[in-house]
Amino acid sequence: MSVLARQVVMDRRPEGAPVAADCRIEEVALGEPSEGELLVRNLWLSLDPYMRLFMTTQDGLHESVPVGAPMPGGAVGEVIASNAESLPVGTLVVSMGHGWRDHYIAPAEAVQPISPDAGPIQRFLGLYGLTGVTAWGGINGVLKPKPGETLYVNGAAGAVGSLVVQLAKHAGATVIASAGSETKGHWLTETLGADHFINYKSQDVRERLAEVAPDGIELFFDNVGGDQFEIAIDAMKPKGRAALCGAIALYDGDNYRAGPRNLFAIIEKHVSVTGFNAGFYYEMAPQIIAEYAELEATGKLIYEETVIDGLEAMPQGFVDMLSGANTGKMLVRL
Amino acid sequence: MSVLARQVVMDRRPEGAPVAADCRIEEVALGEPSEGELLVRNLWLSLDPYMRLFMTTQDGLHESVPVGAPMPGGAVGEVIASNAESLPVGTLVVSMGHGWRDHYIAPAEAVQPISPDAGPIQRFLGLYGLTGVTAWGGINGVLKPKPGETLYVNGAAGAVGSLVVQLAKHAGATVIASAGSETKGHWLTETLGADHFINYKSQDVRERLAEVAPDGIELFFDNVGGDQFEIAIDAMKPKGRAALCGAIALYDGDNYRAGPRNLFAIIEKHVSVTGFNAGFYYEMAPQIIAEYAELEATGKLIYEETVIDGLEAMPQGFVDMLSGANTGKMLVRL
Repeated sequence: MSVLARQVVMDRRPEGAPVAADCRIEEVALGEPSEGELLVRNLWLSLDPYMRLFMTTQDGLHESVPVGAPMPGGAVGEVIASNAESLPVGTLVVSMGHGWRDHYIAPAEAVQPISPDAGPIQRFLGLYGLTGVTAWGGINGVLKPKPGETLYVNGAAGAVGSLVVQLAKHAGATVIASAGSETKGHWLTETLGADHFINYKSQDVRERLAEVAPDGIELFFDNVGGDQFEIAIDAMKPKGRAALCGAIALYDGDNYRAGPRNLFAIIEKHVSVTGFNAGFYYEMAPQIIAEYAELEATGKLIYEETVIDGLEAMPQGFVDMLSGANTGKMLVRL
Repeated sequence: MSVLARQVVMDRRPEGAPVAADCRIEEVALGEPSEGELLVRNLWLSLDPYMRLFMTTQDGLHESVPVGAPMPGGAVGEVIASNAESLPVGTLVVSMGHGWRDHYIAPAEAVQPISPDAGPIQRFLGLYGLTGVTAWGGINGVLKPKPGETLYVNGAAGAVGSLVVQLAKHAGATVIASAGSETKGHWLTETLGADHFINYKSQDVRERLAEVAPDGIELFFDNVGGDQFEIAIDAMKPKGRAALCGAIALYDGDNYRAGPRNLFAIIEKHVSVTGFNAGFYYEMAPQIIAEYAELEATGKLIYEETVIDGLEAMPQGFVDMLSGANTGKMLVRL
């Protein structure tokens, strides 16, 4: 069996915010899987903010994707040809490095089999995957909210943010959530249970934080970075804790790694800033998945997906996700 | 009783690094202390890096000293006239806001009586005061070194740094200490017990850290900030902890509050950066003082002072302290 695979490659490096035309779709002929390899047909692809970092050549932490190379990312697919006994044809698998394409060949060790019994299979890209583990790690590994504490999360209607809101509420925290539309605000407060909403596009975040938390905030979960991080530092109470998860506001600029211009303020307030990523919590994934499954089964967790269809729509979907078009987890269905 | 007091005032704002001529000495006639007030003759004055921040008008955290106003800071003095029953003539007191002068009048509540039995009275500006509480808070409140962990401290021959080296050694850590001369390096390793020395003026700190801690560092105590903070972030192991105490390298620049340009790296390594200052640990001062007294009495703590004489020498002494001329605590004896 051999197939003609389609893949999304980066056609040129974005200058500033990416546009769909920075990518193109190309076809490549795949051969037969060699000994120990699989041919996988992807069913679901993930779109996540961190993927923006693959497009930069800034001296930094992430591997830079060469111009003309396919974009990596998480995917769920089905084994359609196998030369590995452990993963026969029909096995559903999740992969991290073989993202933006419809078929790929990989060694069996490069993918993880998943069970369709756990729920819709695309969950392994979101609630049961990178997204869910990230939110869980930030709340239960880093911030550890206590009842009565106030937590502020930005990007709150996104994949990670919308889980953070709910996990923090379950922990007994008062939750301030910011996002970019009134529709999202309504969803965050009425459906997810956030206590306060800040529309960062139409309101002054600094003023609104002072209104809804006049004594300051104990906890901050940062998905955005840049001046939004700075505003939160200024709003933090003494002994406050911040979890630094991402900095989407900086990814299009000259230095996505830059610290806030007022970091020294943490000296005055005995504030802790802890960076983290899902990698530190993957070993707990079975426990995390079980917790999410239980929360959802008992109606205590709302999990939203924004789905687009087809590889052709993926470049524009990526651009839209980066500018906040999605609510909850952004996915591509093939 | 009335006296002609001398005080050091900021005569002009420094541009870049301060010079002695940015200050001048003036005489002011003090009247009689009013009801509840004291007249104090200072015996010892403190010189500390944070005082540089009083000289800036940058939008920041510290009160800016107006041009022509006296410089504040810690001082130990003797009550020579009293209109407050609680603090009779002869009482020794420590003050924080009445620093760079030989006499002052203040309400009794603005000073703290000290006991001459605890050791040399200038200890209350150093080991038993701001310096000692800062080092103790950074080690025992923030970093909590565990045996076998590696701690890197810069500005290690300074007042706080030289205590940090010893407290970290007592906790069982391997200590890497940086300072600006071979003489200081010899003192840090041979007398204070640091395991490794980095001469930041003559060596490449990044290379030396990689040499002496090829697997990275768990703990970082930062007195310097700027690119030295950035180098340490890059050298930190996963789950490392940094204590941010000061940023003397930034105080002469455009933004002393700026975070490191590679802060995003803490996301990849699950690193925590905690700011702190002595204020959060003053309530534990009696315990801290007792611990230091015990350590010193049993020969387990070396406490060094660099002393200059006279108010006239203070402006140049301040400049020298900022550029690292001192070993241990910098003091002015009147």
